[in-house]
Amino acid sequence: MTIAMAPEQELQAEKKIEKKYVYLFSEVNVAEEYAGGSWDGARGLLGGKGANLGDMTRLGVPVPPGLTVTTEACNAYLAAGEKFPEGMWEQILVSLKDVEKAMGKKIGDLQKPLLVSCRSGAKFSMPGMMDTVLNIGMNDVVAEEMIKRTGPRFVYDIYRRLIQMFGSVVMGVPDEVFEVVIEAQRKVAGVKSDTEMSAEDWQVVTEQFKQIYKTYTQEDFPQDPYEQMKRATEAVFKSWNGKRAFAYRNAAGIAHNLGTAVNIQSMVYGNISPDAGTGVAMSRNASTGEKELEGDFLMNAQGEDVVAGIRITQPISDLKKEMPAIYAQFEEIAQKLEKHYRNMQDMEFTIDRGKLWLLQTRDGKRTAQAEVRIAVDMVEEGLITKEEAVVRVKPAQVDFFLHPQLDAEALKEATKVATGLNVSPGAAVGMVAFDADTAEKWAKEEGKKVIMVRPETKPDDVHGMLAAQGILTSKGGRTSHAALVARQFGKPAVVGVSELELDLFSRSMTVGDGLVIHEGDWLSLDGTEGIVYLGQIPTVVPDIKNPYLIKLLSWADEFRRLGVWANADYPRDAERAREYGAQGIGLCRTEHMFFEAERMPIVQRMIMAKHAVDRKEALDQLLPLQRGDFEGLFRAMNGLPVIIRLIDPPLHEFLPSFEELVQDLADLKVRMQHYHTLSEIDAALAEIRIKQDYLERVEALREMNPMLGTRGVRLGILIPELTRMQVRAIFEAACKCAREGFDVHPEVMIPLISHVNELKVQQSALEAEARAVMNEQGIEIKYKFGTMIEIPRAALTASEIAEVAQFFSFGTNDLTQTTFGISRDDAESGFLMEYQQQGILKENPFASIDPNGVGRLMEIAVKDGRSARSDLEVGICGEHGGDPKSIAICHKLNLNYVSCSPFRVPIARLAAAHAALAEKK
Amino acid sequence: MTIAMAPEQELQAEKKIEKKYVYLFSEVNVAEEYAGGSWDGARGLLGGKGANLGDMTRLGVPVPPGLTVTTEACNAYLAAGEKFPEGMWEQILVSLKDVEKAMGKKIGDLQKPLLVSCRSGAKFSMPGMMDTVLNIGMNDVVAEEMIKRTGPRFVYDIYRRLIQMFGSVVMGVPDEVFEVVIEAQRKVAGVKSDTEMSAEDWQVVTEQFKQIYKTYTQEDFPQDPYEQMKRATEAVFKSWNGKRAFAYRNAAGIAHNLGTAVNIQSMVYGNISPDAGTGVAMSRNASTGEKELEGDFLMNAQGEDVVAGIRITQPISDLKKEMPAIYAQFEEIAQKLEKHYRNMQDMEFTIDRGKLWLLQTRDGKRTAQAEVRIAVDMVEEGLITKEEAVVRVKPAQVDFFLHPQLDAEALKEATKVATGLNVSPGAAVGMVAFDADTAEKWAKEEGKKVIMVRPETKPDDVHGMLAAQGILTSKGGRTSHAALVARQFGKPAVVGVSELELDLFSRSMTVGDGLVIHEGDWLSLDGTEGIVYLGQIPTVVPDIKNPYLIKLLSWADEFRRLGVWANADYPRDAERAREYGAQGIGLCRTEHMFFEAERMPIVQRMIMAKHAVDRKEALDQLLPLQRGDFEGLFRAMNGLPVIIRLIDPPLHEFLPSFEELVQDLADLKVRMQHYHTLSEIDAALAEIRIKQDYLERVEALREMNPMLGTRGVRLGILIPELTRMQVRAIFEAACKCAREGFDVHPEVMIPLISHVNELKVQQSALEAEARAVMNEQGIEIKYKFGTMIEIPRAALTASEIAEVAQFFSFGTNDLTQTTFGISRDDAESGFLMEYQQQGILKENPFASIDPNGVGRLMEIAVKDGRSARSDLEVGICGEHGGDPKSIAICHKLNLNYVSCSPFRVPIARLAAAHAALAEKK
Repeated sequence: MTIAMAPEQELQAEKKIEKKYVYLFSEVNVAEEYAGGSWDGARGLLGGKGANLGDMTRLGVPVPPGLTVTTEACNAYLAAGEKFPEGMWEQILVSLKDVEKAMGKKIGDLQKPLLVSCRSGAKFSMPGMMDTVLNIGMNDVVAEEMIKRTGPRFVYDIYRRLIQMFGSVVMGVPDEVFEVVIEAQRKVAGVKSDTEMSAEDWQVVTEQFKQIYKTYTQEDFPQDPYEQMKRATEAVFKSWNGKRAFAYRNAAGIAHNLGTAVNIQSMVYGNISPDAGTGVAMSRNASTGEKELEGDFLMNAQGEDVVAGIRITQPISDLKKEMPAIYAQFEEIAQKLEKHYRNMQDMEFTIDRGKLWLLQTRDGKRTAQAEVRIAVDMVEEGLITKEEAVVRVKPAQVDFFLHPQLDAEALKEATKVATGLNVSPGAAVGMVAFDADTAEKWAKEEGKKVIMVRPETKPDDVHGMLAAQGILTSKGGRTSHAALVARQFGKPAVVGVSELELDLFSRSMTVGDGLVIHEGDWLSLDGTEGIVYLGQIPTVVPDIKNPYLIKLLSWADEFRRLGVWANADYPRDAERAREYGAQGIGLCRTEHMFFEAERMPIVQRMIMAKHAVDRKEALDQLLPLQRGDFEGLFRAMNGLPVIIRLIDPPLHEFLPSFEELVQDLADLKVRMQHYHTLSEIDAALAEIRIKQDYLERVEALREMNPMLGTRGVRLGILIPELTRMQVRAIFEAACKCAREGFDVHPEVMIPLISHVNELKVQQSALEAEARAVMNEQGIEIKYKFGTMIEIPRAALTASEIAEVAQFFSFGTNDLTQTTFGISRDDAESGFLMEYQQQGILKENPFASIDPNGVGRLMEIAVKDGRSARSDLEVGICGEHGGDPKSIAICHKLNLNYVSCSPFRVPIARLAAAHAALAEKK
Repeated sequence: MTIAMAPEQELQAEKKIEKKYVYLFSEVNVAEEYAGGSWDGARGLLGGKGANLGDMTRLGVPVPPGLTVTTEACNAYLAAGEKFPEGMWEQILVSLKDVEKAMGKKIGDLQKPLLVSCRSGAKFSMPGMMDTVLNIGMNDVVAEEMIKRTGPRFVYDIYRRLIQMFGSVVMGVPDEVFEVVIEAQRKVAGVKSDTEMSAEDWQVVTEQFKQIYKTYTQEDFPQDPYEQMKRATEAVFKSWNGKRAFAYRNAAGIAHNLGTAVNIQSMVYGNISPDAGTGVAMSRNASTGEKELEGDFLMNAQGEDVVAGIRITQPISDLKKEMPAIYAQFEEIAQKLEKHYRNMQDMEFTIDRGKLWLLQTRDGKRTAQAEVRIAVDMVEEGLITKEEAVVRVKPAQVDFFLHPQLDAEALKEATKVATGLNVSPGAAVGMVAFDADTAEKWAKEEGKKVIMVRPETKPDDVHGMLAAQGILTSKGGRTSHAALVARQFGKPAVVGVSELELDLFSRSMTVGDGLVIHEGDWLSLDGTEGIVYLGQIPTVVPDIKNPYLIKLLSWADEFRRLGVWANADYPRDAERAREYGAQGIGLCRTEHMFFEAERMPIVQRMIMAKHAVDRKEALDQLLPLQRGDFEGLFRAMNGLPVIIRLIDPPLHEFLPSFEELVQDLADLKVRMQHYHTLSEIDAALAEIRIKQDYLERVEALREMNPMLGTRGVRLGILIPELTRMQVRAIFEAACKCAREGFDVHPEVMIPLISHVNELKVQQSALEAEARAVMNEQGIEIKYKFGTMIEIPRAALTASEIAEVAQFFSFGTNDLTQTTFGISRDDAESGFLMEYQQQGILKENPFASIDPNGVGRLMEIAVKDGRSARSDLEVGICGEHGGDPKSIAICHKLNLNYVSCSPFRVPIARLAAAHAALAEKK
């Protein structure tokens, strides 16, 4: 049944047919209106490149005129089985008339031929799409006429480019085939580079290209400019569904139904005449951020010549002398674009017979230093708000100010040895040392720079790590001992480099492909990227005291709600943390002090004690040492809170390892057989007895799963005199500092609580000790007692625990381990890597807090804890405290503060501000 | 201002003064009414003993008449500063008149003197309270007159008892002083026991007692019967606040304001004449539960004589012949009391000159067998309901039917060696064997009964454990390997006996005090109590097929909501489980089968494989073996679901231990030095190479915290062909059984999920394999895929996981470990013991589910899981599945079933019914 169409419907149908598929660059307003009024909508319709060109045109910036075929056209083309939608081609032809008019040239015209380029341009830039065909419109007859005005070299150069691009991009002729011809011609001409080729050379090449084209496509190279344009346009459309583009969209999560636009734009030439030229310039200095044009140009040259670096380019400042009017015009354009895009611009320009054309503009890439300075300057210029400045700088960019970096230029030439986990950022260059003692000796006695290389590190390696420039291990994960200590002390480190095979006997190591590195050889580490390079690579040292950074961070402080505290064990760390803006110490690990060389023997005596008396004697010796540590902390943090965590690790960590003792004993027994004098034998026997004692104790302390073993508060309950000594040291130090006039705020943290009764038992004993000290000293100190929340059960019973604890501090390393049932050291070099490769885990949960599991437990703990004690202070002191994504979670959970290593304090300040600003939006 | 009292108010005031403090036994109804109408109220007012005596009186049971002074009187006495409340003493005197009348005797009367006892009686029975003063009313003149009628021996015996009890209990004279006198007199008389003492002996003792009394109290023994009574009553009141009673109430949580009552009761005597007697009897047989009077009596004797066992007692059946009327009366009373108390009664009686008196009745203690039979019989007699019968039997009593027990009589003489954790109930008697091979050899080849003793056990000890009667270890906890395997196979076991020091070289062990036990010596284990005895102790074997138990459990099944499934790895376990009432298999651990002697080499080859081909070959060999295992299970569980868990433990568990390999290699190298022929050396070198290979693999697989390491689904993801083989075996077996006509319901369980993506990846691969098998076989099987919830994160993200999993099974062993951050093996013999001793943890969380932590996670998992999948099947297969307290939690959480070892299935059925019935209340 057919129904006659009403006139109005007919009109609509007609409108439908007349859907606008083509917009001149100058019609960007129309496109924007059609797309819902937003620039983003226009970008969807015209593609990124098309919208940008339109945008510049609208701003009055001289852009070679052209038109954009919309993404809708592309989708319609693909939907219709690769058929141009009704009217599209006609619209192109109509719009081309306008372009011809604007340029005063005509397609295919023999006198003033208009040449155009044809480029794809999707909403998001995307590898795998058809790129560019230049010089469309050239053909045999146009060439012949054009030679008369511009000479043959220019024309044949243009023509051969068209054939090569059209052939390879549109028709799929292998690009190498064209390259081979050029190379052969270079040999014939006896020249090294294309710029030296003569007109004749290019003419020969052009002829041969036509031949190749015919051989591969079974047709002559199309002479009709419109045919060239049509087929280039189709090729762009088709490339949207090309294999590589499709795969890229899958990986990047870009929708498959966006389609691509096609831009057809007039060609302009920087090599057409002596008063032509081309260049690239930034609106500000990309290295320093200074407000000055920065860039290079070449007169009578093509864009490629600037990039290829064959001819020596001139700095953009020279243009001022050579073409002052053009330079002034360019400067004005740069400012206009900056103002429009509210960002530093990276611009390509061409001067075609004395006329300036902008070919492209985009936000300029820059160093971290430049990023910070530009953000601050732009606020002061009134270009952007403080909030925008703060949001614009990424936390990782702040990191840059804190660590030396390998020089980017030098890296281009460097030999990469291996890659591993980038656990502690910055660059380190030094000579390989395979143990802590060697590292320390070389560094301290011989003044050498050292990279300490170990399978993994242990607490008694710390002196070597401190002496070294950087740390490299073949095992261990993101929170291995090596990683934690390295971050703590700001030492660059790469760990878990499984390709390394260490042979500690021959003092060398082998890398995958057989490269052998001996002790004493030079290596350079990039801890920021997790890469190991051979040899000495120069480094560049930025500056944390950069005034722009200081200003930016002070703005960040205005916006953030989260406090930023630091983890610091020593006064020097606390001082640095404070300098970097820390508002408190969130974690002082008391046991780290035990590992110092002069204390270890006392600590071991305490552990080995068979009688309470012996243990007390050892503890009495430790007391003044610990007190001294705390005094330094309290002075450094005058007026700010200092959270001190009582002993946490299992005791066996302070003793030699089981394997080591067994080996030592075996060696001693062998050696004994060679002794003859009684005194020698006696001495050996005594040593054997001591080692045997150690071995027995180590065996007794040995646990199947030490991570779930006798640690933290469990130790405090089994050996109450140990934690009592620590609390005494804290309060004696606090009283002393208070008497000296310091404002001290000690907070005692009890680790590894899983049941409120553990806290009750331990805390009441320790508060009694604190009270006793204050009575002895006659001074009242304001203090808190609290606990870590690092065991799921503690989070689940937070309401009970908060009845006793005055503060919570999330230990998210341990909490992640137990919530996931994953041992971090084992897993990060094992199945966790596989999980990330397979995409089972999108993030390493030890790097960023897992929101659904660990985050949910944290949420329960905060909610239940505050319901029991409304003024409960809640923070985080795990490694996550310095990770921006985790900081965002902490902000959302309304924590009071995050605490991280001093080196991450500036990053955390910024990330906390980002979280607050994201919430405001 | 004084207001004249209205007559009514006056009356009330008078009433107040006349508050009733004294109730005759026959006034129990009045007391009950005053106390709010309940028997429990009456018990509060009259104390437990007083209420009971009143109760029996009300039932018409002949009870020697008497009166009760209320707990209110006691409280008033104490409140008034130890002063009898107004009117109390007068009320006693009034009520005594009634007692005198009933007995036809009078206090202090020379012809018919009434003697009475005075006893405390609080609401709850309580040690530390004043107990008893007998024979109040005796004095010098009464004695003199009484001798005429009953002879001097009886009278002096009675009199000396009064002085001793009054002296020690009321006046605080040390009891030993009296005992010394008796002992001296025994020597004088040349007799061994008090029963042989003559009238003269007791007369001498009585005189000396009076002397002692005077020496210690500075007064003559009071001759006034009322004075005796008054002071005894005061002593009872005061003892309420005695130190021991106070401490006991604190410990037992009994309120301090309850007060105690005082019972003053006529004395009757079983030794007053030849037709007097005394005895104790149960209304049913306490060993078997049979419905017959069971007990002993003695004519012309006192209660003490029956208990002390000096004279040989007669069975109660003899009374029928000797005093048929009395026996008949007693039988009738027993039935009346049973009917009233709805329970078997344990009664004390005295026949005083031919008249039967009941002195006490209480619920009788009985064996588990008797408990079950009595409960069932009483339902059938209409005495109690089925619900009551089910509630009355405790789960631990059902356990008794499942395991032989050490004979209780023999235990009295036994030498206790040590105590440990009671991880697997029942008795085991055997000769000590210090390794699995010896245990197996002795048991299989020599037919010996063996107790296998090890520091701890490992999977390759299982053959020895199976051959042994019982297992004893010095290390390990409630869920150690030894404990798990022992429970699984119903082998009695005591573990974690830290007093044992094993010396495996000298093949002996030393216990704390120096006792040395050699291999081959006999030991007896009580796995129910966790005690080790020396030598062979006889055992008694109850019977699970007891018809009463079967009936009781069938009633339990009517009431419970929870299903009861069993953990079974082998067909024989499945059969037993089904016989015991299991409704499905909740856990088949596929890896247990790998440990069998003939399979271990194949499993090791699979692990050691360097190429995929070699691995496949090993897996291909395992496939038919696993298939065979599953066929047996499916046949045994025809019609019921069978949950099969894919491989769970870390691979290193299937390889020799690191220490072992190092030792072997060292030995081999030493031995090598003594070889001379080439072939010897070649063989040794080959062996070294193999061991070296193993060592390398073991080192590669070694983890710091294997509990948190590469286990469960992590293995399945790293070695997908392994779990694929297992699924193939399951479905090939299922198809085969289905073809044979069996109704199979396989459910494949993937362990150790912490992130839903692990399940997605693994389950989709495995379902594809299942589908492939069903297609090959042309049979459709109804199946499920699901997961264990044994990691906190799995519980926290249950809604995501339930989108993929069709069932959840809580693995609460692992869940407890990670929720608490406790390694069970390390902790149970370490700080967890200390925690329980210090009361930090009231319960071992590995024995009973921790409700606040683990329970909360389970609640989250059930709720969130069912919100995503409403028909989600949720069960528990951890060790807790057989623990009554945990079963109650599972019931409350609305799980579908609990799964436990076959031996605990009957217990779980009962416990599940208890939980359901408790909820109804």
